[in-house]
Amino acid sequence: MDLVDLEFIKHISLSSPTKIILLVIDGLGGLPNPETGKTELETANTPNLDKLATNGICGFIDPVSPGVTPGSGPGHLALFGYNPIHFNIGRGVLEALGIDFDLQPEDVAARGNFCTVDKAGLVTDRRAGRISTEECAKLCQLLNGLIIDRVKVLVRPVKEHRFIVVFRGEGLTPAISESDPQQIGVIPELITALNPEASRMASIARQYVDKARAILTEHSPANMLLLRGISQRLQLPTMNEIYKLKPSVIAVYPMYRGLAKLVGMEVLKTGTSIEDELATLKQNYTNYDFFFLHVKGTDSAGEDGDFDRKVKVIEQVDNVIPDIISLEPDVIVVTGDHSTPALLKSHSWHPVPVLLYSKWCRPDRVGEFSESACLSGGLGRFPATQIMPLAMANALKLTKFGA
Amino acid sequence: MDLVDLEFIKHISLSSPTKIILLVIDGLGGLPNPETGKTELETANTPNLDKLATNGICGFIDPVSPGVTPGSGPGHLALFGYNPIHFNIGRGVLEALGIDFDLQPEDVAARGNFCTVDKAGLVTDRRAGRISTEECAKLCQLLNGLIIDRVKVLVRPVKEHRFIVVFRGEGLTPAISESDPQQIGVIPELITALNPEASRMASIARQYVDKARAILTEHSPANMLLLRGISQRLQLPTMNEIYKLKPSVIAVYPMYRGLAKLVGMEVLKTGTSIEDELATLKQNYTNYDFFFLHVKGTDSAGEDGDFDRKVKVIEQVDNVIPDIISLEPDVIVVTGDHSTPALLKSHSWHPVPVLLYSKWCRPDRVGEFSESACLSGGLGRFPATQIMPLAMANALKLTKFGA
Repeated sequence: MDLVDLEFIKHISLSSPTKIILLVIDGLGGLPNPETGKTELETANTPNLDKLATNGICGFIDPVSPGVTPGSGPGHLALFGYNPIHFNIGRGVLEALGIDFDLQPEDVAARGNFCTVDKAGLVTDRRAGRISTEECAKLCQLLNGLIIDRVKVLVRPVKEHRFIVVFRGEGLTPAISESDPQQIGVIPELITALNPEASRMASIARQYVDKARAILTEHSPANMLLLRGISQRLQLPTMNEIYKLKPSVIAVYPMYRGLAKLVGMEVLKTGTSIEDELATLKQNYTNYDFFFLHVKGTDSAGEDGDFDRKVKVIEQVDNVIPDIISLEPDVIVVTGDHSTPALLKSHSWHPVPVLLYSKWCRPDRVGEFSESACLSGGLGRFPATQIMPLAMANALKLTKFGA
Repeated sequence: MDLVDLEFIKHISLSSPTKIILLVIDGLGGLPNPETGKTELETANTPNLDKLATNGICGFIDPVSPGVTPGSGPGHLALFGYNPIHFNIGRGVLEALGIDFDLQPEDVAARGNFCTVDKAGLVTDRRAGRISTEECAKLCQLLNGLIIDRVKVLVRPVKEHRFIVVFRGEGLTPAISESDPQQIGVIPELITALNPEASRMASIARQYVDKARAILTEHSPANMLLLRGISQRLQLPTMNEIYKLKPSVIAVYPMYRGLAKLVGMEVLKTGTSIEDELATLKQNYTNYDFFFLHVKGTDSAGEDGDFDRKVKVIEQVDNVIPDIISLEPDVIVVTGDHSTPALLKSHSWHPVPVLLYSKWCRPDRVGEFSESACLSGGLGRFPATQIMPLAMANALKLTKFGA
């Protein structure tokens, strides 16, 4: 939903004591194993999800639009009701969220790569031989804390050759070009302003790159850096503003907590397992009316091409479903932010199975939670941004529109 | 997709060696024969399409939107990914494409009807008694080549009383009213400018109509002409610009080649039969990565109300499916630009069956290509403009959106 749609939902949304749990099994959708003809979800033994499907209503969501493979950012924004094409999160911001960096609204964040350049300045390796994360952290310390024209430049390691650069100061804008040429054998691109207002920002970024080059020159193979995905935090209306919810997030990985913070969810401290997440849910159950519960293992297994491990993680999720039901939430939604078929070893464009359970849903005849069964589900196939209005309606949190 | 959506797809599309074949069986969708309860597609013996459906994924497309019956122009533009409401091809332009007229970007084209007027100038027959095409051609020669205010007026016969008028010169605009009153017993409408910039164009068109009236006065029943659908070629982003494809068209009829040229497809010379089209496909297979293959016979049979002939043409198409598969394209899409039920003897609003086959599609349980079976297809029902992104995704030609 774009701003007009969100404004509409805001207009009809009500605060109420009912509770919604959105369980996101990251990368849930799959493709059939050629040997069995069954997807990961179809292979997994999921008696509890199947029971929920029997009593609920199923279907498919398109996170962005048919054919489009979403990254984690767009996939989750859509689940929270925000049109991910309209609200586009930059790579720099997403990387910052991913390391729990406390990004301020005016900060400009860039994704950095350490790279190798030759004596002529031509890029010979865009990833500096994938230096270790420890080496990356040391180099980031050297580059961190410079002040250019009253702007502080913060540098934090991410993983291997990857890091973030955050420009903090007044009046900054992300409307500058990238320095990463995306190929070797050429010099890094000169950062330029994309509009007249961005000329100071472009100048600061160029000065920073020059200073960094001087600092890094003796640190081959990481003797230069490349910047891209230069972006600022989106100013999104919060879920409290739109849905009048008091929302919270339970997620093991920082990026998902960061995404949830962008839309105003409160972060609940949790451990590292699905069971830890459930314990967190139980402890905090009375204090919120919306819980975004994130399970990462399915996506990681899919990305690794590990069909069996993805099946196992789905079964682990199934194990905790009775605990979720025992809390008696008014609405449970189970879905994914996108598909990650183990066969493709990557996110994919395939629509994602979705299950909605509530006292007030109109159950269909779907008796198991699987891609095949969802095809005849009562929810049909619809944009992921419609999940929130559906969940709100089933929690009796949307008033009648018009007389 | 409108310009914003196309811009989005352009942003994530990749050039790659994979190949897509879009087989359009014109007017494919049908209605059940009251005697058998089966549509044309359901009646036809189509073992090869059924096999493709078994291994692929099926569904329904709405060419424009539910309830809207598309003409050939909108139907095909939608299949190519262009929102046909946003990109509206004028009737004059479409008629020009239909006779292979080499329309220039600044030409203004109108669809003409020879008609009969009485002594008072009132229209008594809007089709001049459907004069023969030969007679039409003779009259067009009399009207062709006039020059008015530095604008050359080209006139070409189409069929029976139908012809086109093309105004060629500098600074022309199609923003003028039509002269066809769409009823008898009244005088033709006076052509007027629809905005101030169009006053010269309106004056030229009026002068042309006056001169034509003088020339035709002795040629009763074709003693006058009526103009409508006054339009200019759309400036569309090409399929190469959007999808980074090298696209080609194989079509027997000029209108479909013309539509394809509008979106930048290269026209491949072919013969008059489906087998000729297949031969053309094979000869050119290595040179392009997208092939729009058009079969006309189904629509013609439907328009004629000839249920059995439509069935036979579908069976002819089925016969060449193994040849298409043997080329091992990465994606095959089989669908129509609209439905043409023999029972209605016309285009209709009914959604059109669609089948997508690719190594990476998520197969559904549909085991035959038919209206009834497609109802439970995994693609669901979706706008025809989404076919191209889906085909692109399945050919692994779309990158991930967002991190």
